[in-house]
Amino acid sequence: MALCKQVTIAGLGLMGGSLGMALRRGRIAERVVGFSRRAATIAHAKRIGAIHAGSTRAEEAACDADLVVLAAPVDAIEPVARQLAPFLRPGCVVTDLGSSKQRIVRAIERAMPEGVAYVGSHPLAGSHERGLGAAHAALYRGSVCILTPTPRSDRRAIRRLTSLWSALSARVVLMDPAAHDRLLAAVSHLPHLLAFSLIQATAPEALPLAPKSFLDVTRVAKSDPDLWDDIILSNRQAILQAMGRFDRAWSSMRRSVSTGNRRQLQRTFRHAQRVRSRLDA
Amino acid sequence: MALCKQVTIAGLGLMGGSLGMALRRGRIAERVVGFSRRAATIAHAKRIGAIHAGSTRAEEAACDADLVVLAAPVDAIEPVARQLAPFLRPGCVVTDLGSSKQRIVRAIERAMPEGVAYVGSHPLAGSHERGLGAAHAALYRGSVCILTPTPRSDRRAIRRLTSLWSALSARVVLMDPAAHDRLLAAVSHLPHLLAFSLIQATAPEALPLAPKSFLDVTRVAKSDPDLWDDIILSNRQAILQAMGRFDRAWSSMRRSVSTGNRRQLQRTFRHAQRVRSRLDA
Repeated sequence: MALCKQVTIAGLGLMGGSLGMALRRGRIAERVVGFSRRAATIAHAKRIGAIHAGSTRAEEAACDADLVVLAAPVDAIEPVARQLAPFLRPGCVVTDLGSSKQRIVRAIERAMPEGVAYVGSHPLAGSHERGLGAAHAALYRGSVCILTPTPRSDRRAIRRLTSLWSALSARVVLMDPAAHDRLLAAVSHLPHLLAFSLIQATAPEALPLAPKSFLDVTRVAKSDPDLWDDIILSNRQAILQAMGRFDRAWSSMRRSVSTGNRRQLQRTFRHAQRVRSRLDA
Repeated sequence: MALCKQVTIAGLGLMGGSLGMALRRGRIAERVVGFSRRAATIAHAKRIGAIHAGSTRAEEAACDADLVVLAAPVDAIEPVARQLAPFLRPGCVVTDLGSSKQRIVRAIERAMPEGVAYVGSHPLAGSHERGLGAAHAALYRGSVCILTPTPRSDRRAIRRLTSLWSALSARVVLMDPAAHDRLLAAVSHLPHLLAFSLIQATAPEALPLAPKSFLDVTRVAKSDPDLWDDIILSNRQAILQAMGRFDRAWSSMRRSVSTGNRRQLQRTFRHAQRVRSRLDA
């Protein structure tokens, strides 16, 4: 039996489209409905098998859903939640896929009507590609999905979302929104900012000779710039703290290079090699 | 007809071993001889088809060579050159594969006997793996190889080395040693240091959840720590300058994050995405 009767996916890009495809392929939802401002996007999503049906009208998309996934870009999540909220029926579970959580969780918990349970999700899956054209049913398979419940969260909603992500072959981890934001600042937002800055610092004439090391370090700079300003600005405090931690490591590196401290360099390089190699295991 | 009668490769690790395999497979050299301190390494290199023969004795390895490639780690290149120098015959061409050039080129130009021509090479190929076990004949195929002639360089030696690297399917670029070191500081040494520092700055408990972006940015931190302290210390001035350029970009990034300057962030991200995407073409 399917886990859900009707899942409504609000926002049909890479994340929402891939989710719809996976829910349909895995028969995890009996019916997948899309919500988008653009009729053409809904038609496209239907064509590629991401949704059974869709609507540009909030009421039509929301009224029969037992699960709603807000798959819009970070800054659009709250407005979309407010659009759908009046039409959600009691017992419905709502989640979002935003990659920063404190601000979003606070806003959506407030916006939900009586009887509707919300818990934030952040599947650590994605790509520097974007849009429905890049969607594929395996996007979430094998990934980690962080759920960010708060003291206000409904326990059954946490269980239902845990089942949903598990059915999509993601590993579920629970974390409060602030801990999530600190973690993501460190392992995602900071690396992106370093890559963007490295490109910024590289003279144009050096680029044609860039070796594989440079291409690896800067690959994430291909990420969609229009998503990333929202992500960064929605998690400023945690990111500034992560930048501060990087700065301390970086200052110590500069000191070792400028004083020619071979022992300290070796210690740092060996530690980094050991730690990084373990992540491949 | 083969380009060389006898190529002697001094240092049988990833770079030297792969070179030997490619020279033999492509019939670019009639005979490939290995020079190593360890007899076991020579036996291993013979077994995998990287050399025809080898010796632990400098005289035996050097005396019949018309081309000598110093494929030792950066800090061992000059000592190995001095070991072989007394036995090189007039007309022999010598090169090295070091990844920093000014110091090495200056030292080896001085160490070469009358009639022996030296020009530095730096093939931008390699891997975070090391050693003969990782060697393969295709390592240099499609890569860029920088030759670093000086006003003292013999023109025929430049031509011979250009032919050699071209025969290995590498694209040859000429650059003076100082320009090479500035370039490599920017596109290789700096990215490595950023990756090492990012690992250093990441709390251990955050690592198990590191997403693909983090893994991409830090992949080069797996590089051999015992090679990298030599590389960094052999190119300190250029690296400190590259770190300074990065710092200016990084400070401006921090200012944009802390003041919430969306326009400036977007400008930086868009620029980075455009520049980086072009490198894949």
